Amino acid sequence: MQVVLDDFLDAQGRVLAEVGPDCAALLEGIRALLRGGKRLRPAFCYWGYRGAGGADGDGIVDVGAALELFQAAALIHDDLMDDSDTRRGLPAAHRRFASLHAGAGWAGSEERFGLAGAVLTGDLCLGWSDELFSAARLPAADVARARGVFSLMRTQLMGGQYLDVLEQAAAAVSDPAGAVDRARRVVRFKSAKYSVEHPLLLGARLAGAPEQLLASYSAVGLSLGEAFQLRDDVLGTFGDPEVTGKPAGDDLREGKRTLLVALALRSASPAQAATVQRLLGDPDLDADGVAALREVLVATGAAAAVEEHIARLVEEACEALDAAAVDETSRAALHGLLVAATSRQA
Amino acid sequence: MQVVLDDFLDAQGRVLAEVGPDCAALLEGIRALLRGGKRLRPAFCYWGYRGAGGADGDGIVDVGAALELFQAAALIHDDLMDDSDTRRGLPAAHRRFASLHAGAGWAGSEERFGLAGAVLTGDLCLGWSDELFSAARLPAADVARARGVFSLMRTQLMGGQYLDVLEQAAAAVSDPAGAVDRARRVVRFKSAKYSVEHPLLLGARLAGAPEQLLASYSAVGLSLGEAFQLRDDVLGTFGDPEVTGKPAGDDLREGKRTLLVALALRSASPAQAATVQRLLGDPDLDADGVAALREVLVATGAAAAVEEHIARLVEEACEALDAAAVDETSRAALHGLLVAATSRQA
Repeated sequence: MQVVLDDFLDAQGRVLAEVGPDCAALLEGIRALLRGGKRLRPAFCYWGYRGAGGADGDGIVDVGAALELFQAAALIHDDLMDDSDTRRGLPAAHRRFASLHAGAGWAGSEERFGLAGAVLTGDLCLGWSDELFSAARLPAADVARARGVFSLMRTQLMGGQYLDVLEQAAAAVSDPAGAVDRARRVVRFKSAKYSVEHPLLLGARLAGAPEQLLASYSAVGLSLGEAFQLRDDVLGTFGDPEVTGKPAGDDLREGKRTLLVALALRSASPAQAATVQRLLGDPDLDADGVAALREVLVATGAAAAVEEHIARLVEEACEALDAAAVDETSRAALHGLLVAATSRQA
Repeated sequence: MQVVLDDFLDAQGRVLAEVGPDCAALLEGIRALLRGGKRLRPAFCYWGYRGAGGADGDGIVDVGAALELFQAAALIHDDLMDDSDTRRGLPAAHRRFASLHAGAGWAGSEERFGLAGAVLTGDLCLGWSDELFSAARLPAADVARARGVFSLMRTQLMGGQYLDVLEQAAAAVSDPAGAVDRARRVVRFKSAKYSVEHPLLLGARLAGAPEQLLASYSAVGLSLGEAFQLRDDVLGTFGDPEVTGKPAGDDLREGKRTLLVALALRSASPAQAATVQRLLGDPDLDADGVAALREVLVATGAAAAVEEHIARLVEEACEALDAAAVDETSRAALHGLLVAATSRQA
C-alpha cells in the first residue's frame, strides 16, 4: 500500500508543482503522516473483502490507500480542532505550518497561517481520498456498489465528530442523566462505525457480499469498534507516555467527555464530582492533576466498568465473527485484528 | 437546481439525524448558504455541456449542484481562514457556530467551537459534492470521463488558495520584482481555472467534446476567468458596500496581495510604498485608511492598468468564443455569462 500511496502522492506533487513550487509544503506533511499509522482501516477493509470472496489484487489495495488518505484528512482537521501538538510523533499539520511561518519571519499571525495550512492540507486529502477510491483498479460496477458505504462513512464521521466537540462544550449544562448515552453515541459514530464497521462493509460490498454477511460484519464491527475506542480512551487516560507516544492524561487535559468520565460522574460523591469539574479540560493540567482525576476514575469504579465493558464487547465480536460465513483464513485474520485492536498498549 | 440541492440536503439531514438531533446545526448553515450565490460555475458547466452537444436533462443539473456544494465548502473554509464575518449577507459558518456557543453559555472558547463547526461543515460539503457528482443521472461512462477534471479542479484550487495565503504572509520578504507574476498565478489557479475553465471543461468532457473544443473552452475560460477575478478585486477594493454587501475596502483590510496592489507597488514612490506598507492588512483599517490606499492605487496608475487588462482579457475571451465550434444558442448564452461576470457591480 505504501507504493500505491507514494506513487499517488508523486503524481499529485507534479500537479501541485505546476500551481507553484511553494505548494511542496502542502505535500511534505501528508507524506510524513502517511508513512506512519496502524493501517487498521485498510486491514479491516481487506479482510472484509477477502472474507466475502474477493480475490487478492491491486484494486483492494487502492481502496485501502483511499481509506488511509481519508483518515489523514480526519486526523489533520481533528488535530486542528483539538489544537493538538503532535501526531504520530510529528508536529500536527497546523503546528508544522505555524513553525514554517515563524521560522521565515513572515507577516501576520503564525497561528492563522498554521490554521490555513492545516485546513487546506486536510481538504487536499479529502479530495484525493475520493480520487483514489474512484480510480481503484476494480470493476466499475463493484466500486459503484460500494460507494454508498464510502459516502455514509464520511457523513457519519463528521456528524460524530461534531457531537464529540459539542459534548465537550455543553457537558456542564446538559442533562447529566444522558451523559453515558451521549458518550456511547459519540463512540458509535465517531469510531465504531468509522474505524471498523464501515471498512468491513466497504470490502464486503466491493466483493458483492450477500445481506447475511453484511449483517454479520455489522455485528462484528460495532462491538469490536466500540471496544477499540474504549481501549483508546483508557490509553488516553491511563496510558504510559513511553509507549503511547502521547503526553500522560492527554484526554483529561483536552476535557474529552469519554464513557470513563460519564460513568465516573454517575457514581461520584460531591467531592469527586467537584474534582472532575475543577480539573477536567484544564489545558495546564499537571502530573498531580492527572493523578487526582485518575484516582476519581478508579475509585468510582468507572475504570473497572469500562474494562468489563470492553471484555463483553470483545466477546460479542468474537461470537459474531465465529458465526459469520467467511473462510477460515479470513476468520483467523479478522480475529487477529480484533485482538490487536482491543488489547493494545499504544 | 435548487430542487436537487434541497432534496439532497433533506436526505443528508436524515442521515445526520440518525447520528444525533444536534447535528441539525451542521445542516442549517449549509442550507442557508446554498440558497444564495450567483451560481456562475453551474452555468458555465451547463453551457459548456450544451455547447459540446450535450442534451438538456437532469444529469447536468446534478453536476451543477455538485459544483455548488464544492463551492460552499471552499467558501466556508476560506471564510474561516480569512476570519471573515459574513458571506452572502449571512454570518460566516465559524461565526454562526461561535454565536451558537456564546448564546448557549457553553464551556470553553467560542472561537474554537466556531472553528470546529466550520471545519466540519466544509468537510461535509466536500464529501457531499463528490457524492452528488458520482450519483449524477448521466451515463456512468460520461461521469468517469469527466472525473479527471473534477479532481484536478479540487487540487489546483487548494494549491492556489495556499499560494494566496502564503503571498499575504510572505509578501514583505519576497522578491518584489516577482510580485506581479505571483499575483497573476494566484488569480490563474484560485480563480480563472476554478471558476470558469474547469466548469466549462467539466461540461465538455461530460458531453464527450473533441480536443479542439476543449482547447477553445480553455482559451475562453482562462481569459474570462482572469477578468472575472480582477473585477472581483476591483470591487473588493473600490466597490460600493450598498451594492456588494461587503464592507468598503474589505480586501485592503484583509491585506490581499491582488494584482492591483502588485502593480501599484511596482510604480509607487517611496512615500506611496510606505503608505501601502503601513495600512494594507491592518484589521482596524478605517474609512480614512481605505481612502488613502485607494488614492495610491489610483495615483500609481494601477487601477487604470487593471481596468485595461480586464478589457483586453474580455476581448480575448470573446474572440476565443467566436472561434469555438459551438451552436449559436450556446455561444449567445456563454457570451451573456461573460458580460455578466466581468462587468458586474457586486
